[in-house]
Amino acid sequence: MPRYKLLIEYDGTPYVGWQAQANGRSAQQAIEEAILAFTGQTLRIQGAGRTDAGVHATGQVASVMLAKDWSTDRVRDALNAHLTLQDDYVTILGVEKMPDNFDARFSAKGRRYLYRLIDRRPPLTLERHRAWHIRKSLDADAMHEAAQGLVGHHDFTTFRSADCQAQSPMKTLDRLDVARVGDEIHVIATARSFLHNQVRSMVGSLRRVGAGDWSKADLVGVLEARDRTRCAALAPPHGLYLTGVDY
Amino acid sequence: MPRYKLLIEYDGTPYVGWQAQANGRSAQQAIEEAILAFTGQTLRIQGAGRTDAGVHATGQVASVMLAKDWSTDRVRDALNAHLTLQDDYVTILGVEKMPDNFDARFSAKGRRYLYRLIDRRPPLTLERHRAWHIRKSLDADAMHEAAQGLVGHHDFTTFRSADCQAQSPMKTLDRLDVARVGDEIHVIATARSFLHNQVRSMVGSLRRVGAGDWSKADLVGVLEARDRTRCAALAPPHGLYLTGVDY
Repeated sequence: MPRYKLLIEYDGTPYVGWQAQANGRSAQQAIEEAILAFTGQTLRIQGAGRTDAGVHATGQVASVMLAKDWSTDRVRDALNAHLTLQDDYVTILGVEKMPDNFDARFSAKGRRYLYRLIDRRPPLTLERHRAWHIRKSLDADAMHEAAQGLVGHHDFTTFRSADCQAQSPMKTLDRLDVARVGDEIHVIATARSFLHNQVRSMVGSLRRVGAGDWSKADLVGVLEARDRTRCAALAPPHGLYLTGVDY
Repeated sequence: MPRYKLLIEYDGTPYVGWQAQANGRSAQQAIEEAILAFTGQTLRIQGAGRTDAGVHATGQVASVMLAKDWSTDRVRDALNAHLTLQDDYVTILGVEKMPDNFDARFSAKGRRYLYRLIDRRPPLTLERHRAWHIRKSLDADAMHEAAQGLVGHHDFTTFRSADCQAQSPMKTLDRLDVARVGDEIHVIATARSFLHNQVRSMVGSLRRVGAGDWSKADLVGVLEARDRTRCAALAPPHGLYLTGVDY
């Protein structure tokens, strides 16, 4: 049975998250229903990143084994036709055939996230479910400088959800860049893997730096405290995008 | 009574358009309700451009006379507080005091529109209500070259809605630029004023050029025919943005 890699984009707004759950529709469920409609197979697909409710993806990856050897173009177009019929906000950007040992989650060597903040006084309209609205102006340069204090191999207990199921809080953060892009501030985070809520926790704390409440030393102190209660309020899910997975 | 100029942004998705209508909620109505809640005044505001249902604005302008001499910051913040309470996708970006003879519609010397097309095979998700999805690749350079045949003073009967209430079909199109911007194609149109559906009509016809169905000569022939039935299918409203009004 051929194994396929699906490159997936979704608007997280209407979903309970990537992962299939009892309490509402997920992006994973949308794709699994499209696979059922296309192939007649009832199966579970494996995603590279478990995004929370409201989090978006422009580069999620999932692996799936199909019973028949369809062409990659056929898989993409057929799944998209069914996703459209289902009126889902999920699309298959591309499909590749992979070796049998490929697993979207366990084969991943890196995940990339983008977090968008818009700092302006008026409320958001077109970007309301797409970016975090901050009413006061933020200092992106100070945020970038402080963010460098989180890069590297650390115990990220402070920036880890109480629900996190990872065995260890030790992670290596490869990159945490903050830059002003037009009217927005973009935070780009890359690592082999992240703890649950790690990006949103770090962005919530970087916002305190951008607002002038915290110095870089404060942020590093919070990291070194390894104490979840020292983390700033979590950044909301709707500013976060899973932009890519590297293999 | 002081006169104010409101600079307005809205997501057109949930609205029947700019203009107050019996068949649903409009952006104008949202602002008028916010003004009523703030000042107690029931009034009609004048907008510079009557956008259709689903059309967005990042630079709509309206004029309004308020009974009291509020500061411009106060007007902006109070209206935005009420628009937020109303859960509207409309925001006031800025407020200016204007001379008594200022009228957002009749004082306007120019209107600027952006039309976004995304030409890719997979359906859209995050941009579904924000851009026109074209499944086949378009030639943006050919579109730009052909568009220059529409610039200038012409009878735009071909590109005019049957419902258009303008007395004359003669308009001067100052600029119609088409360019690829990342994964998108942007059409920028500027003129003192436009006929009803003129931008969407022109974009619908430019798409035929981009797809290779029409040459520049075909497009100019369609313009010169002054015949509405020669126009290509109208581009959908959700790719259109009123980006600015000049005075």
